[in-house]
Amino acid sequence: MKALGIIAGGGDLPRAVAESARESGRDVFVVGLRGLCGDWAEGFPHEWVSLGEPGRALKALAGAGAGDVLLVGRVERPKFSELKLDAKGLMVIPKVLAAARQGDDALLRLLVGLFEAEGFRAVGVADAAPGLVAEEGALGRIKPTDEHQADIARGFAIVRALGALDVGQAAAVCEGLALAVEAAEGTDRMIARVGELRESLRGTADKKRGVLVKGLKPTQDAKTDMPVVGVQTVRRAAEMGLAGIAVEAGKSLIVDKRAVKDEADRLGLFVMGIRP
Amino acid sequence: MKALGIIAGGGDLPRAVAESARESGRDVFVVGLRGLCGDWAEGFPHEWVSLGEPGRALKALAGAGAGDVLLVGRVERPKFSELKLDAKGLMVIPKVLAAARQGDDALLRLLVGLFEAEGFRAVGVADAAPGLVAEEGALGRIKPTDEHQADIARGFAIVRALGALDVGQAAAVCEGLALAVEAAEGTDRMIARVGELRESLRGTADKKRGVLVKGLKPTQDAKTDMPVVGVQTVRRAAEMGLAGIAVEAGKSLIVDKRAVKDEADRLGLFVMGIRP
Repeated sequence: MKALGIIAGGGDLPRAVAESARESGRDVFVVGLRGLCGDWAEGFPHEWVSLGEPGRALKALAGAGAGDVLLVGRVERPKFSELKLDAKGLMVIPKVLAAARQGDDALLRLLVGLFEAEGFRAVGVADAAPGLVAEEGALGRIKPTDEHQADIARGFAIVRALGALDVGQAAAVCEGLALAVEAAEGTDRMIARVGELRESLRGTADKKRGVLVKGLKPTQDAKTDMPVVGVQTVRRAAEMGLAGIAVEAGKSLIVDKRAVKDEADRLGLFVMGIRP
Repeated sequence: MKALGIIAGGGDLPRAVAESARESGRDVFVVGLRGLCGDWAEGFPHEWVSLGEPGRALKALAGAGAGDVLLVGRVERPKFSELKLDAKGLMVIPKVLAAARQGDDALLRLLVGLFEAEGFRAVGVADAAPGLVAEEGALGRIKPTDEHQADIARGFAIVRALGALDVGQAAAVCEGLALAVEAAEGTDRMIARVGELRESLRGTADKKRGVLVKGLKPTQDAKTDMPVVGVQTVRRAAEMGLAGIAVEAGKSLIVDKRAVKDEADRLGLFVMGIRP
Protein backbone atom coordinates (compact mmCIF):
# COMPACT_ATOMS: atom_id res chain seq x y z
CA MET A 1 0.00 0.00 0.00
CA LYS A 2 1.37 3.38 -0.98
CA ALA A 3 2.04 5.97 1.71
CA LEU A 4 -0.74 8.24 2.97
CA GLY A 5 0.01 11.91 2.39
CA ILE A 6 -1.66 14.20 4.92
CA ILE A 7 -1.91 17.88 4.14
CA ALA A 8 -2.37 19.14 7.65
CA GLY A 9 -4.03 22.36 8.80
CA GLY A 10 -4.77 23.45 12.37
CA GLY A 11 -6.64 21.78 15.20
CA ASP A 12 -6.38 18.33 16.76
CA LEU A 13 -7.81 16.31 13.92
CA PRO A 14 -4.75 16.07 11.62
CA ARG A 15 -2.64 14.60 14.40
CA ALA A 16 -5.39 12.15 15.40
CA VAL A 17 -5.66 10.96 11.81
CA ALA A 18 -1.91 10.68 11.35
CA GLU A 19 -1.50 8.67 14.55
CA SER A 20 -4.48 6.45 13.83
CA ALA A 21 -3.19 5.69 10.31
CA ARG A 22 0.33 4.99 11.59
CA GLU A 23 -1.03 2.70 14.31
CA SER A 24 -2.85 0.70 11.64
CA GLY A 25 0.55 0.07 10.07
CA ARG A 26 0.48 2.59 7.25
CA ASP A 27 3.34 4.81 6.09
CA VAL A 28 2.39 8.42 6.66
CA PHE A 29 3.91 11.56 5.19
CA VAL A 30 2.77 14.92 6.55
CA VAL A 31 2.71 18.17 4.59
CA GLY A 32 2.34 20.69 7.41
CA LEU A 33 0.75 24.00 6.49
CA ARG A 34 3.03 26.59 8.00
CA GLY A 35 1.41 28.62 10.80
CA LEU A 36 -1.57 26.24 10.98
CA CYS A 37 -0.28 22.72 11.59
CA GLY A 38 1.19 22.01 15.04
CA ASP A 39 4.70 20.80 15.89
CA TRP A 40 3.47 17.23 16.10
CA ALA A 41 4.25 16.92 12.36
CA GLU A 42 7.95 16.77 13.33
CA GLY A 43 7.26 13.27 14.70
CA PHE A 44 6.47 12.06 11.16
CA PRO A 45 8.33 12.19 7.86
CA HIS A 46 7.22 15.66 6.81
CA GLU A 47 7.67 18.86 4.86
CA TRP A 48 6.50 22.37 5.79
CA VAL A 49 4.82 24.43 3.08
CA SER A 50 3.03 27.76 2.96
CA LEU A 51 -0.49 28.18 1.66
CA GLY A 52 0.75 29.66 -1.61
CA GLU A 53 3.00 26.69 -2.39
CA PRO A 54 0.91 23.91 -3.91
CA GLY A 55 3.82 23.06 -6.25
CA ARG A 56 6.08 22.39 -3.29
CA ALA A 57 3.41 20.28 -1.59
CA LEU A 58 2.84 18.16 -4.70
CA LYS A 59 6.57 17.62 -5.15
CA ALA A 60 7.05 16.56 -1.53
CA LEU A 61 4.14 14.11 -1.75
CA ALA A 62 5.47 12.58 -4.98
CA GLY A 63 8.96 12.34 -3.49
CA ALA A 64 7.54 10.52 -0.44
CA GLY A 65 5.77 7.99 -2.64
CA ALA A 66 2.34 9.02 -1.43
CA GLY A 67 -0.61 7.56 -3.34
CA ASP A 68 -3.55 8.67 -1.24
CA VAL A 69 -3.77 12.28 -0.18
CA LEU A 70 -5.91 13.67 2.63
CA LEU A 71 -6.61 17.33 3.27
CA VAL A 72 -7.44 17.74 6.93
CA GLY A 73 -7.59 20.40 9.63
CA ARG A 74 -8.59 23.98 9.99
CA VAL A 75 -7.43 26.40 7.30
CA GLU A 76 -8.40 30.01 7.66
CA ARG A 77 -8.70 31.97 4.47
CA PRO A 78 -5.53 33.92 3.85
CA LYS A 79 -5.40 37.41 2.39
CA PHE A 80 -4.94 36.17 -1.13
CA SER A 81 -3.09 39.34 -2.10
CA GLU A 82 -0.42 38.61 0.52
CA LEU A 83 0.24 34.98 -0.42
CA LYS A 84 3.73 34.14 -1.63
CA LEU A 85 2.97 31.97 -4.61
CA ASP A 86 5.19 29.31 -6.15
CA ALA A 87 4.94 28.54 -9.89
CA LYS A 88 2.00 26.17 -9.45
CA GLY A 89 0.37 28.65 -7.11
CA LEU A 90 0.55 31.37 -9.77
CA MET A 91 -1.10 29.03 -12.28
CA VAL A 92 -4.04 28.08 -10.10
CA ILE A 93 -4.69 31.32 -8.20
CA PRO A 94 -7.37 32.63 -10.63
CA LYS A 95 -9.39 29.45 -10.13
CA VAL A 96 -8.80 29.55 -6.40
CA LEU A 97 -10.12 33.11 -6.17
CA ALA A 98 -13.19 32.22 -8.21
CA ALA A 99 -13.91 29.18 -6.04
CA ALA A 100 -13.31 31.14 -2.82
CA ARG A 101 -16.12 33.48 -3.81
CA GLN A 102 -18.53 30.57 -3.89
CA GLY A 103 -17.72 29.44 -0.37
CA ASP A 104 -15.41 27.14 1.55
CA ASP A 105 -16.71 23.95 0.03
CA ALA A 106 -16.18 25.09 -3.52
CA LEU A 107 -12.63 26.00 -2.51
CA LEU A 108 -12.04 22.57 -0.99
CA ARG A 109 -13.45 20.82 -4.04
CA LEU A 110 -11.06 22.78 -6.22
CA LEU A 111 -8.07 21.79 -4.08
CA VAL A 112 -9.09 18.14 -4.13
CA GLY A 113 -9.35 18.34 -7.93
CA LEU A 114 -5.85 19.82 -8.06
CA PHE A 115 -4.35 16.80 -6.31
CA GLU A 116 -6.36 14.35 -8.35
CA ALA A 117 -5.19 15.99 -11.57
CA GLU A 118 -1.63 15.19 -10.47
CA GLY A 119 -2.42 11.49 -10.10
CA PHE A 120 -3.02 11.31 -6.36
CA ARG A 121 -6.17 9.77 -4.96
CA ALA A 122 -8.03 12.12 -2.62
CA VAL A 123 -9.25 10.18 0.41
CA GLY A 124 -11.31 11.14 3.42
CA VAL A 125 -10.65 10.78 7.11
CA ALA A 126 -13.12 7.88 7.22
CA ASP A 127 -10.89 5.95 4.80
CA ALA A 128 -7.61 6.91 6.39
CA ALA A 129 -8.70 6.52 10.03
CA PRO A 130 -12.03 4.69 10.25
CA GLY A 131 -11.74 4.41 14.04
CA LEU A 132 -12.55 8.12 14.33
CA VAL A 133 -15.97 7.87 12.68
CA ALA A 134 -18.98 8.37 14.99
CA GLU A 135 -21.17 5.32 15.48
CA GLU A 136 -24.92 5.17 16.07
CA GLY A 137 -26.18 5.46 19.65
CA ALA A 138 -24.99 7.03 22.87
CA LEU A 139 -21.23 7.02 23.36
CA GLY A 140 -21.41 7.26 27.14
CA ARG A 141 -23.74 6.49 29.97
CA ILE A 142 -26.18 9.36 29.50
CA LYS A 143 -29.08 9.25 27.04
CA PRO A 144 -31.11 12.12 25.61
CA THR A 145 -34.67 12.65 26.89
CA ASP A 146 -37.67 13.02 24.56
CA GLU A 147 -37.33 16.78 24.82
CA HIS A 148 -33.66 16.53 23.84
CA GLN A 149 -34.65 14.31 20.92
CA ALA A 150 -37.02 17.00 19.70
CA ASP A 151 -34.26 19.58 19.93
CA ILE A 152 -31.88 17.24 18.12
CA ALA A 153 -34.38 16.86 15.26
CA ARG A 154 -34.81 20.63 15.04
CA GLY A 155 -31.03 21.09 15.21
CA PHE A 156 -30.48 18.73 12.28
CA ALA A 157 -33.16 20.53 10.26
CA ILE A 158 -31.36 23.82 10.85
CA VAL A 159 -27.92 22.41 10.14
CA ARG A 160 -29.16 20.85 6.89
CA ALA A 161 -30.73 24.11 5.73
CA LEU A 162 -27.60 26.06 6.60
CA GLY A 163 -25.40 23.41 5.15
CA ALA A 164 -27.22 23.44 1.82
CA LEU A 165 -26.17 27.09 1.58
CA ASP A 166 -22.59 26.37 2.71
CA VAL A 167 -22.96 28.52 5.82
CA GLY A 168 -21.94 26.30 8.74
CA GLN A 169 -22.36 22.89 10.26
CA ALA A 170 -23.50 23.43 13.84
CA ALA A 171 -26.44 24.79 15.81
CA ALA A 172 -27.54 24.89 19.44
CA VAL A 173 -31.23 24.43 20.24
CA CYS A 174 -32.96 24.60 23.61
CA GLU A 175 -36.62 23.63 23.95
CA GLY A 176 -37.36 24.64 20.39
CA LEU A 177 -35.44 27.91 20.42
CA ALA A 178 -32.41 28.20 18.12
CA LEU A 179 -29.84 29.59 20.54
CA ALA A 180 -26.93 29.90 18.13
CA VAL A 181 -26.04 29.01 14.60
CA GLU A 182 -22.55 28.64 13.20
CA ALA A 183 -21.13 30.67 10.34
CA ALA A 184 -17.50 31.71 9.78
CA GLU A 185 -16.69 31.90 13.49
CA GLY A 186 -16.49 28.11 13.93
CA THR A 187 -18.15 25.76 16.37
CA ASP A 188 -16.12 26.65 19.48
CA ARG A 189 -17.04 30.31 19.34
CA MET A 190 -20.62 29.43 18.50
CA ILE A 191 -20.85 27.30 21.64
CA ALA A 192 -19.27 30.05 23.75
CA ARG A 193 -22.03 32.37 22.57
CA VAL A 194 -24.71 30.22 24.14
CA GLY A 195 -23.40 31.22 27.57
CA GLU A 196 -23.92 34.90 26.75
CA LEU A 197 -27.66 34.49 26.34
CA ARG A 198 -30.08 35.18 29.18
CA GLU A 199 -30.26 32.30 31.62
CA SER A 200 -33.98 31.86 31.04
CA LEU A 201 -33.24 30.82 27.45
CA ARG A 202 -30.58 28.24 28.13
CA GLY A 203 -29.20 25.80 30.68
CA THR A 204 -26.36 26.24 33.13
CA ALA A 205 -23.47 23.97 34.16
CA ASP A 206 -25.64 22.84 37.10
CA LYS A 207 -28.92 22.51 35.29
CA LYS A 208 -28.19 21.57 31.71
CA ARG A 209 -30.66 22.25 28.90
CA GLY A 210 -30.54 22.18 25.13
CA VAL A 211 -28.37 20.38 22.62
CA LEU A 212 -25.50 21.00 20.25
CA VAL A 213 -25.95 19.47 16.81
CA LYS A 214 -23.18 19.11 14.25
CA GLY A 215 -23.86 17.74 10.79
CA LEU A 216 -22.19 17.32 7.44
CA LYS A 217 -23.19 20.00 4.95
CA PRO A 218 -24.94 18.49 1.91
CA THR A 219 -22.45 20.51 -0.17
CA GLN A 220 -19.55 19.03 1.76
CA ASP A 221 -17.47 16.21 0.55
CA ALA A 222 -17.16 13.73 3.41
CA LYS A 223 -13.58 13.33 2.25
CA THR A 224 -12.48 16.75 3.23
CA ASP A 225 -14.53 18.28 5.97
CA MET A 226 -16.51 16.01 8.28
CA PRO A 227 -17.80 17.57 11.47
CA VAL A 228 -15.55 16.82 14.42
CA VAL A 229 -16.27 16.47 18.11
CA GLY A 230 -13.52 16.15 20.71
CA VAL A 231 -12.96 16.46 24.43
CA GLN A 232 -12.86 20.24 24.13
CA THR A 233 -16.26 20.25 22.43
CA VAL A 234 -17.71 18.29 25.35
CA ARG A 235 -16.11 20.63 27.92
CA ARG A 236 -17.28 23.76 26.15
CA ALA A 237 -20.79 22.43 25.72
CA ALA A 238 -20.94 21.54 29.43
CA GLU A 239 -19.65 24.96 30.48
CA MET A 240 -22.31 26.65 28.41
CA GLY A 241 -25.01 24.54 30.07
CA LEU A 242 -25.87 22.32 27.11
CA ALA A 243 -27.25 18.88 27.97
CA GLY A 244 -25.65 16.98 25.13
CA ILE A 245 -24.16 16.72 21.67
CA ALA A 246 -25.59 14.97 18.63
CA VAL A 247 -23.70 14.16 15.45
CA GLU A 248 -24.57 12.19 12.36
CA ALA A 249 -23.44 8.59 12.70
CA GLY A 250 -21.10 7.54 9.91
CA LYS A 251 -20.62 11.13 8.78
CA SER A 252 -18.90 12.75 11.74
CA LEU A 253 -15.66 12.22 13.58
CA ILE A 254 -14.97 11.84 17.25
CA VAL A 255 -11.36 12.48 18.13
CA ASP A 256 -10.29 10.22 21.02
CA LYS A 257 -13.57 8.41 21.64
CA ARG A 258 -12.50 6.99 24.99
CA ALA A 259 -11.62 10.44 26.39
CA VAL A 260 -14.79 11.97 24.93
CA LYS A 261 -16.89 9.24 26.55
CA ASP A 262 -15.19 9.63 29.94
CA GLU A 263 -15.48 13.41 29.89
CA ALA A 264 -19.14 13.27 28.83
CA ASP A 265 -19.93 10.84 31.66
CA ARG A 266 -17.98 12.94 34.17
CA LEU A 267 -19.73 16.16 33.14
CA GLY A 268 -23.17 14.63 32.74
CA LEU A 269 -23.68 15.13 28.98
CA PHE A 270 -24.82 12.76 26.30
CA VAL A 271 -22.89 12.33 23.06
CA MET A 272 -25.11 10.69 20.45
CA GLY A 273 -24.56 9.39 16.96
CA ILE A 274 -27.84 9.74 15.07
CA ARG A 275 -29.06 8.59 11.68
CA PRO A 276 -31.42 11.47 10.99
CA MET B 1 -61.45 55.87 14.41
CA LYS B 2 -60.98 53.88 17.59
CA ALA B 3 -57.79 54.32 19.59
CA LEU B 4 -54.68 52.33 18.74
CA GLY B 5 -53.52 50.13 21.60
CA ILE B 6 -49.79 49.50 21.59
CA ILE B 7 -48.44 46.64 23.69
CA ALA B 8 -44.89 47.83 23.96
CA GLY B 9 -41.77 45.75 24.60
CA GLY B 10 -38.15 46.91 24.52
CA GLY B 11 -36.09 48.76 21.92
CA ASP B 12 -36.69 51.95 19.96
CA LEU B 13 -39.45 50.70 17.71
CA PRO B 14 -42.47 50.93 20.03
CA ARG B 15 -41.79 54.60 20.71
CA ALA B 16 -41.24 55.34 17.01
CA VAL B 17 -44.57 53.69 16.20
CA ALA B 18 -46.42 55.47 19.00
CA GLU B 19 -45.08 58.85 17.97
CA SER B 20 -45.70 58.27 14.28
CA ALA B 21 -49.30 57.19 14.98
CA ARG B 22 -49.94 60.15 17.28
CA GLU B 23 -48.46 62.56 14.70
CA SER B 24 -50.91 61.22 12.14
CA GLY B 25 -53.71 62.30 14.48
CA ARG B 26 -54.60 59.01 16.08
CA ASP B 27 -55.42 58.37 19.74
CA VAL B 28 -52.79 56.08 21.19
CA PHE B 29 -52.90 54.02 24.37
CA VAL B 30 -49.72 52.26 25.49
CA VAL B 31 -49.60 49.05 27.50
CA GLY B 32 -45.97 49.08 28.64
CA LEU B 33 -44.44 45.70 29.47
CA ARG B 34 -42.75 46.20 32.80
CA GLY B 35 -38.97 45.89 32.64
CA LEU B 36 -38.97 45.97 28.84
CA CYS B 37 -40.74 49.12 27.66
CA GLY B 38 -38.91 52.40 28.26
CA ASP B 39 -40.09 55.42 30.28
CA TRP B 40 -41.32 57.11 27.11
CA ALA B 41 -44.68 55.38 27.67
CA GLU B 42 -45.31 57.90 30.46
CA GLY B 43 -45.77 60.52 27.73
CA PHE B 44 -48.89 58.69 26.50
CA PRO B 45 -52.08 57.47 28.15
CA HIS B 46 -50.74 54.18 29.45
CA GLU B 47 -50.81 51.23 31.82
CA TRP B 48 -47.89 49.12 33.02
CA VAL B 49 -48.36 45.35 33.04
CA SER B 50 -46.12 42.37 33.68
CA LEU B 51 -45.65 39.55 31.20
CA GLY B 52 -47.92 37.24 33.18
CA GLU B 53 -50.84 39.68 33.18
CA PRO B 54 -52.70 39.40 29.87
CA GLY B 55 -55.98 39.91 31.73
CA ARG B 56 -54.83 43.26 33.02
CA ALA B 57 -53.59 44.27 29.54
CA LEU B 58 -56.92 43.34 27.92
CA LYS B 59 -58.88 45.24 30.55
CA ALA B 60 -56.75 48.39 30.15
CA LEU B 61 -57.13 48.28 26.37
CA ALA B 62 -60.91 47.85 26.58
CA GLY B 63 -61.12 50.69 29.13
CA ALA B 64 -59.16 52.98 26.81
CA GLY B 65 -61.54 52.24 23.93
CA ALA B 66 -58.84 50.67 21.81
CA GLY B 67 -60.01 48.89 18.66
CA ASP B 68 -56.74 48.06 16.93
CA VAL B 69 -53.99 46.44 18.94
CA LEU B 70 -50.33 46.27 17.99
CA LEU B 71 -47.71 44.10 19.66
CA VAL B 72 -44.34 45.70 19.12
CA GLY B 73 -40.82 45.69 20.51
CA ARG B 74 -38.36 43.23 21.90
CA VAL B 75 -39.68 40.70 24.40
CA GLU B 76 -37.20 38.24 25.83
CA ARG B 77 -38.60 34.93 26.91
CA PRO B 78 -39.24 34.94 30.63
CA LYS B 79 -38.63 32.00 32.91
CA PHE B 80 -42.18 30.77 32.63
CA SER B 81 -41.98 29.16 36.05
CA GLU B 82 -41.26 32.54 37.65
CA LEU B 83 -44.08 34.48 35.99
CA LYS B 84 -46.70 35.97 38.28
CA LEU B 85 -49.87 35.08 36.44
CA ASP B 86 -53.23 36.86 36.62
CA ALA B 87 -56.46 34.89 36.08
CA LYS B 88 -56.29 35.13 32.29
CA GLY B 89 -52.60 34.27 32.46
CA LEU B 90 -53.37 31.07 34.33
CA MET B 91 -55.93 30.12 31.70
CA VAL B 92 -53.64 30.59 28.71
CA ILE B 93 -50.29 29.47 30.13
CA PRO B 94 -50.54 25.85 28.89
CA LYS B 95 -51.07 27.08 25.32
CA VAL B 96 -48.29 29.63 25.72
CA LEU B 97 -45.83 26.96 26.85
CA ALA B 98 -46.78 24.70 23.95
CA ALA B 99 -46.37 27.53 21.44
CA ALA B 100 -43.07 28.63 22.99
CA ARG B 101 -41.65 25.22 22.26
CA GLN B 102 -42.35 25.73 18.56
CA GLY B 103 -40.43 28.99 18.37
CA ASP B 104 -40.90 32.71 18.73
CA ASP B 105 -43.24 33.05 15.79
CA ALA B 106 -45.66 30.44 17.05
CA LEU B 107 -45.67 32.27 20.37
CA LEU B 108 -46.44 35.58 18.70
CA ARG B 109 -49.21 34.08 16.62
CA LEU B 110 -50.77 32.73 19.78
CA LEU B 111 -50.67 36.12 21.46
CA VAL B 112 -52.20 37.79 18.43
CA GLY B 113 -54.97 35.20 18.50
CA LEU B 114 -55.54 35.95 22.15
CA PHE B 115 -56.28 39.60 21.47
CA GLU B 116 -58.39 38.81 18.43
CA ALA B 117 -60.51 36.42 20.48
CA GLU B 118 -61.32 39.36 22.76
CA GLY B 119 -62.63 41.41 19.86
CA PHE B 120 -59.59 43.55 19.14
CA ARG B 121 -58.14 43.79 15.67
CA ALA B 122 -54.45 42.89 15.56
CA VAL B 123 -52.64 45.35 13.29
CA GLY B 124 -49.05 45.59 12.15
CA VAL B 125 -46.57 48.42 12.31
CA ALA B 126 -47.04 49.01 8.60
CA ASP B 127 -50.74 49.82 9.24
CA ALA B 128 -50.15 51.86 12.37
CA ALA B 129 -47.11 53.78 11.14
CA PRO B 130 -46.68 53.36 7.36
CA GLY B 131 -43.95 56.03 7.28
CA LEU B 132 -41.56 53.57 8.89
CA VAL B 133 -41.74 50.98 6.10
CA ALA B 134 -38.58 50.59 3.96
CA GLU B 135 -38.96 51.63 0.32
CA GLU B 136 -37.21 50.20 -2.72
CA GLY B 137 -33.81 51.61 -3.69
CA ALA B 138 -30.91 53.27 -1.91
CA LEU B 139 -31.86 55.46 1.01
CA GLY B 140 -28.70 57.54 0.90
CA ARG B 141 -26.03 58.60 -1.54
CA ILE B 142 -24.08 55.34 -1.65
CA LYS B 143 -25.02 52.43 -3.91
CA PRO B 144 -23.96 48.79 -3.70
CA THR B 145 -21.41 47.48 -6.23
CA ASP B 146 -21.96 44.31 -8.27
CA GLU B 147 -19.98 42.37 -5.68
CA HIS B 148 -22.20 43.76 -2.93
CA GLN B 149 -25.27 42.79 -4.97
CA ALA B 150 -24.00 39.22 -5.14
CA ASP B 151 -23.51 39.20 -1.37
CA ILE B 152 -26.98 40.68 -0.89
CA ALA B 153 -28.52 37.90 -2.98
CA ARG B 154 -26.62 35.27 -0.99
CA GLY B 155 -27.62 36.98 2.26
CA PHE B 156 -31.31 36.88 1.35
CA ALA B 157 -31.02 33.20 0.41
CA ILE B 158 -29.53 32.47 3.85
CA VAL B 159 -32.07 34.61 5.70
CA ARG B 160 -34.96 32.93 3.88
CA ALA B 161 -33.66 29.44 4.70
CA LEU B 162 -33.10 30.36 8.34
CA GLY B 163 -36.36 32.19 8.48
CA ALA B 164 -38.32 29.21 7.18
CA LEU B 165 -37.06 27.38 10.27
CA ASP B 166 -37.81 30.30 12.60
CA VAL B 167 -34.16 30.74 13.51
CA GLY B 168 -33.33 34.38 12.83
CA GLN B 169 -33.72 37.19 10.36
CA ALA B 170 -30.23 38.52 9.68
CA ALA B 171 -26.94 37.42 8.13
CA ALA B 172 -23.65 39.06 7.20
CA VAL B 173 -21.93 37.98 3.99
CA CYS B 174 -18.57 39.09 2.61
CA GLU B 175 -17.46 38.04 -0.88
CA GLY B 176 -19.49 34.86 -0.72
CA LEU B 177 -18.50 33.88 2.81
CA ALA B 178 -21.26 33.80 5.44
CA LEU B 179 -19.58 35.75 8.24
CA ALA B 180 -22.35 35.52 10.81
CA VAL B 181 -25.91 34.32 11.09
CA GLU B 182 -28.45 35.45 13.65
CA ALA B 183 -30.19 33.17 16.12
CA ALA B 184 -31.42 34.01 19.64
CA GLU B 185 -28.69 36.60 20.27
CA GLY B 186 -30.32 39.24 18.06
CA THR B 187 -28.99 41.34 15.21
CA ASP B 188 -26.84 43.74 17.26
CA ARG B 189 -24.76 40.99 18.79
CA MET B 190 -24.58 39.21 15.48
CA ILE B 191 -23.11 42.33 13.85
CA ALA B 192 -20.63 42.75 16.72
CA ARG B 193 -19.38 39.23 16.04
CA VAL B 194 -18.28 40.18 12.54
CA GLY B 195 -15.56 42.35 14.07
CA GLU B 196 -14.15 39.36 15.97
CA LEU B 197 -13.33 37.45 12.78
CA ARG B 198 -9.87 37.55 11.21
CA GLU B 199 -9.35 40.72 9.19
CA SER B 200 -8.69 38.75 6.02
CA LEU B 201 -12.30 37.54 6.08
CA ARG B 202 -14.02 40.86 6.57
CA GLY B 203 -13.78 44.61 6.07
CA THR B 204 -12.65 47.29 8.47
CA ALA B 205 -14.02 50.73 9.28
CA ASP B 206 -11.50 52.16 6.78
CA LYS B 207 -11.90 49.58 4.06
CA LYS B 208 -15.44 48.32 4.17
CA ARG B 209 -16.42 44.91 2.77
CA GLY B 210 -19.48 42.69 2.97
CA VAL B 211 -23.14 43.34 3.65
CA LEU B 212 -25.72 42.95 6.37
CA VAL B 213 -29.03 41.51 5.19
CA LYS B 214 -32.23 41.53 7.25
CA GLY B 215 -35.38 39.88 6.02
CA LEU B 216 -38.83 38.90 7.21
CA LYS B 217 -39.05 35.24 8.14
CA PRO B 218 -41.58 33.40 5.94
CA THR B 219 -43.09 32.15 9.21
CA GLN B 220 -43.36 35.67 10.52
CA ASP B 221 -46.49 37.66 10.51
CA ALA B 222 -45.63 41.08 9.11
CA LYS B 223 -48.03 42.43 11.71
CA THR B 224 -45.89 41.53 14.66
CA ASP B 225 -42.24 41.22 13.86
CA MET B 226 -40.88 43.05 10.82
CA PRO B 227 -37.11 43.44 10.66
CA VAL B 228 -35.99 46.85 11.86
CA VAL B 229 -33.01 49.00 10.95
CA GLY B 230 -32.11 52.17 12.81
CA VAL B 231 -29.23 54.57 13.32
CA GLN B 232 -27.57 52.14 15.73
CA THR B 233 -27.69 49.39 13.12
CA VAL B 234 -25.89 51.65 10.67
CA ARG B 235 -23.26 52.64 13.26
CA ARG B 236 -22.63 49.07 14.36
CA ALA B 237 -22.39 47.82 10.77
CA ALA B 238 -19.88 50.57 9.97
CA GLU B 239 -17.77 49.82 13.04
CA MET B 240 -17.59 46.18 12.09
CA GLY B 241 -16.39 47.09 8.60
CA LEU B 242 -19.53 46.20 6.66
CA ALA B 243 -20.09 48.11 3.42
CA GLY B 244 -23.85 48.31 3.62
CA ILE B 245 -27.24 47.08 4.74
CA ALA B 246 -30.00 45.53 2.64
CA VAL B 247 -33.58 45.02 3.77
CA GLU B 248 -36.70 43.84 2.01
CA ALA B 249 -38.67 46.80 0.65
CA GLY B 250 -42.24 46.88 1.96
CA LYS B 251 -41.46 44.25 4.57
CA SER B 252 -38.94 45.98 6.83
CA LEU B 253 -38.95 49.06 8.98
CA ILE B 254 -36.51 51.92 9.16
CA VAL B 255 -36.78 53.89 12.37
CA ASP B 256 -36.02 57.57 11.72
CA LYS B 257 -35.29 57.41 8.00
CA ARG B 258 -33.76 60.85 7.83
CA ALA B 259 -31.23 60.10 10.60
CA VAL B 260 -30.45 56.68 9.09
CA LYS B 261 -29.82 58.27 5.69
CA ASP B 262 -27.57 60.98 7.15
CA GLU B 263 -25.58 58.52 9.25
CA ALA B 264 -25.17 56.10 6.33
CA ASP B 265 -23.89 58.93 4.11
CA ARG B 266 -21.56 60.19 6.82
CA LEU B 267 -20.09 56.74 7.48
CA GLY B 268 -19.97 55.67 3.83
CA LEU B 269 -22.48 52.81 3.90
CA PHE B 270 -25.37 51.99 1.63
CA VAL B 271 -28.83 51.22 3.00
CA MET B 272 -30.91 49.49 0.34
CA GLY B 273 -34.51 48.39 0.10
CA ILE B 274 -34.62 45.35 -2.19
CA ARG B 275 -37.43 43.35 -3.74
CA PRO B 276 -35.67 39.97 -3.79
